[in-house]
Amino acid sequence: MTIDGLAVRLREFLRPEQVLTDRQQLRTYECDGLTHYRVVPAIVVLPRTAQECADTVRACADAGVPFVARGSGTGLSGGALPHADGALIVTSQLRAIREVAPQDERAVVEPGVINLQVTRAASPHGYYYAPDPSSQQICSIGGNVAENSGGAHCLKYGFTTNHVTGVEIVTPDGDLVRLGGRAPDAPGYDLLGAFVGSEGTLGIATEVTVRLVRLPETVRTLLAAFPGTDQAGAATSAIIAAGVVPAAVEMMDALAIEAAEAAVHCGYPPGAGAVLIVELDGPQAEVEAQFAAVEGFCRDHGAFEIRIAADDAERALFWKGRKSAFAAVGRISPDYIVQDGVIPRTALPRVLTRIAELAGEHGVRVANVFHAGDGNLHPLVLFDEAVPGQAERAEAVSGAILDLCVEHGGSITGEHGVGFDKAKHLPSMYSAADLDTMQLLRCAFDPRGLSNPGKVFPTPRLCGEVPGRRKGTHPLHQPGIAEVF
Amino acid sequence: MTIDGLAVRLREFLRPEQVLTDRQQLRTYECDGLTHYRVVPAIVVLPRTAQECADTVRACADAGVPFVARGSGTGLSGGALPHADGALIVTSQLRAIREVAPQDERAVVEPGVINLQVTRAASPHGYYYAPDPSSQQICSIGGNVAENSGGAHCLKYGFTTNHVTGVEIVTPDGDLVRLGGRAPDAPGYDLLGAFVGSEGTLGIATEVTVRLVRLPETVRTLLAAFPGTDQAGAATSAIIAAGVVPAAVEMMDALAIEAAEAAVHCGYPPGAGAVLIVELDGPQAEVEAQFAAVEGFCRDHGAFEIRIAADDAERALFWKGRKSAFAAVGRISPDYIVQDGVIPRTALPRVLTRIAELAGEHGVRVANVFHAGDGNLHPLVLFDEAVPGQAERAEAVSGAILDLCVEHGGSITGEHGVGFDKAKHLPSMYSAADLDTMQLLRCAFDPRGLSNPGKVFPTPRLCGEVPGRRKGTHPLHQPGIAEVF
Repeated sequence: MTIDGLAVRLREFLRPEQVLTDRQQLRTYECDGLTHYRVVPAIVVLPRTAQECADTVRACADAGVPFVARGSGTGLSGGALPHADGALIVTSQLRAIREVAPQDERAVVEPGVINLQVTRAASPHGYYYAPDPSSQQICSIGGNVAENSGGAHCLKYGFTTNHVTGVEIVTPDGDLVRLGGRAPDAPGYDLLGAFVGSEGTLGIATEVTVRLVRLPETVRTLLAAFPGTDQAGAATSAIIAAGVVPAAVEMMDALAIEAAEAAVHCGYPPGAGAVLIVELDGPQAEVEAQFAAVEGFCRDHGAFEIRIAADDAERALFWKGRKSAFAAVGRISPDYIVQDGVIPRTALPRVLTRIAELAGEHGVRVANVFHAGDGNLHPLVLFDEAVPGQAERAEAVSGAILDLCVEHGGSITGEHGVGFDKAKHLPSMYSAADLDTMQLLRCAFDPRGLSNPGKVFPTPRLCGEVPGRRKGTHPLHQPGIAEVF
Repeated sequence: MTIDGLAVRLREFLRPEQVLTDRQQLRTYECDGLTHYRVVPAIVVLPRTAQECADTVRACADAGVPFVARGSGTGLSGGALPHADGALIVTSQLRAIREVAPQDERAVVEPGVINLQVTRAASPHGYYYAPDPSSQQICSIGGNVAENSGGAHCLKYGFTTNHVTGVEIVTPDGDLVRLGGRAPDAPGYDLLGAFVGSEGTLGIATEVTVRLVRLPETVRTLLAAFPGTDQAGAATSAIIAAGVVPAAVEMMDALAIEAAEAAVHCGYPPGAGAVLIVELDGPQAEVEAQFAAVEGFCRDHGAFEIRIAADDAERALFWKGRKSAFAAVGRISPDYIVQDGVIPRTALPRVLTRIAELAGEHGVRVANVFHAGDGNLHPLVLFDEAVPGQAERAEAVSGAILDLCVEHGGSITGEHGVGFDKAKHLPSMYSAADLDTMQLLRCAFDPRGLSNPGKVFPTPRLCGEVPGRRKGTHPLHQPGIAEVF
């Protein structure tokens, strides 16, 4: 079936404004937060209910048209990059908060609900939703589920996967099924766990049951200025080694501080080669005792100025610099790449030194902003598109940083996902056999590869061609399924 | 190939004592902790390395012989119940602790390592392995991974799935692959999460990377005696509602206390209709502050005696009664069924009342021992096999309790798994479409159903026959695969 035929079918059960085919309108959706890849989708669909979403997927499946789900489009790995011959299914109209049940510590929401709205709905009851990506004011829960989003406070509270207990999804066939439930640990396979973070390749979430976390009795936040990242890294290691689990430990290096100052005038201590923001939350007695210890560790490792937030306003100011850092880099560089990698905390000094060397070797600047507590780096590689060769050199540094993370026993992504951008890096972490094992799941759910094709897997292939399984015994060895990527 | 042929092939790469075919020796393995189902396996294999395990599975696959993995055989849902025409692969010889890396908060162990040995190896470094099934002195990490085992302290620390970051597994084809890794959140599908708790149906773990948790600064334990379970339940709800997360909140009712007293003379307060054991751990300051609050909640809700463990010896005595409760019931009843279900904490009083009614209606006694903090019930249904009809009545009550859990929004198992025993109850929690979605994963990994057949799924069927997927488009629709169950 052609896209025109699909549009006709979709308009049988959707209103005209829910099915977009006008080129100008389609261009609005040509990229997500990873703006240097752009593809205009063939058609955009905006379902308002789970059933409409399922019917849309079924129509795509029947037509053999690939589809990509999109929430708010804030992802940074190109997970919602459209397919030129495919449908983009936007979940932002599915935005009801269906239930807030503080007594069960659960909320049930539609995928288009904004992350921060869950906390707003829960906070009158004394609860909140813990995972807090920097984009929490605009990113959607559905997108968070697809990417298994993290955030500054995931050090203590875990990622999205630790806060979702059940989902209703549309499978790539167009069936509505439930994975998990309300209970903390449902029997049977934990397909819920596999679905969270599957980046749209196993289907589309149409309802999400999330855990609510009790608002802490106390929150205390400290900002410590160090001569450089080595000292700040050593302080971080000392804090964690002492058994303290802060809600967040964030680090910014000199260049990141410079950018933040230029953009939001956050007033960080002048002359700092690195700042740490350490936040503790929990019962008053615990926080007070640990806060003193954290302050001590910072001083022991060379902090020359320590500020303690006196009130919520000052606390917000500490965070303003950190949360605006990515965007702020635009003040000091025309173009930049936001990288995302993980290393063991103990490797921080070595890796940061090597990143600086790499930057020098390639003649680009790298600003470092990161979740130091869990070793989740966000190097920002600065460049100027207008200078010939600089974009390529920035790309080279950016890729080399990921190799560096893997060499040190880390990961090519901490929280931004693989998406389109990092598929090529996956083989540096997994053997061919490991990747083929993942493909088993993909092919079981989506044998024709219609659900977000070209993402995550580095070498998309026929589901009938996954090697290493003996022919004739395995259902994947079925000839005749056309590759659609 | 016959079992004899398989034995010949296995003996080509295994020593004679690793391949058992003598009927008398085979009988040793006829059941796991769920002793009322017994099946003698056709052959028992004891590999000593991951490669031997993989070669064994490949030999079974080539021969079309079903296989069942077994760790220490302490499971309570019959997950390791042998197959009469199949191989039982025992992992107890894979018992090396390969690495303890406190700086990364990880340990790497083979599947036959005993749960408590991990803690013993980590504790000199100030760390321990958190999930603590009652059987922790004998159960194996491999079995814990298969069943996603819980324990008293999972209220605060989570289940096995929250403490495993990577595994090496043998797939049902005999391939060795890795799922997850050392990093807290690996990219790609979280097949690790799906594997943990898959009860031996997706393959066999040959290496497990676990999180180590810092030993708490302080542990304080309180035992409170209440007139009955209603009051103890209300105290539990009050503790949790106040935002306190104890390491454990355990409840025993009068009959369970009676059994424990008879068996281990734990000296619980006389006349108690229920006891609560509440344990708090963490930083000294936090524990002290919260401990006073917990004591207050217990008194407010009718505790007539509260004992605080003065030292480790007294603390061990509190726990002795609780941890021995299952076995102790043997002192007051010739036979009993250990049940395992979950309900929302808020439903505790209603469900306990209804359990008592069910017991009365059927003329059997039910003792209740449970992880009250997370609503994980362990009703012990007492009966006498020698009295005609009593076993059937006990079974009826036991099944009705699970229905009751589901009715109240809970689950048919909290931590013992589905295994053989509860497969028939799975449809009370999941629709046919939900179960078929789980079968997609099973069939992707194990299209011939050779890996622990007859477990978990209520209606084993041909992988080519999973309905609800359109024929011809889905690789599962491949004719000609023989059903082996």
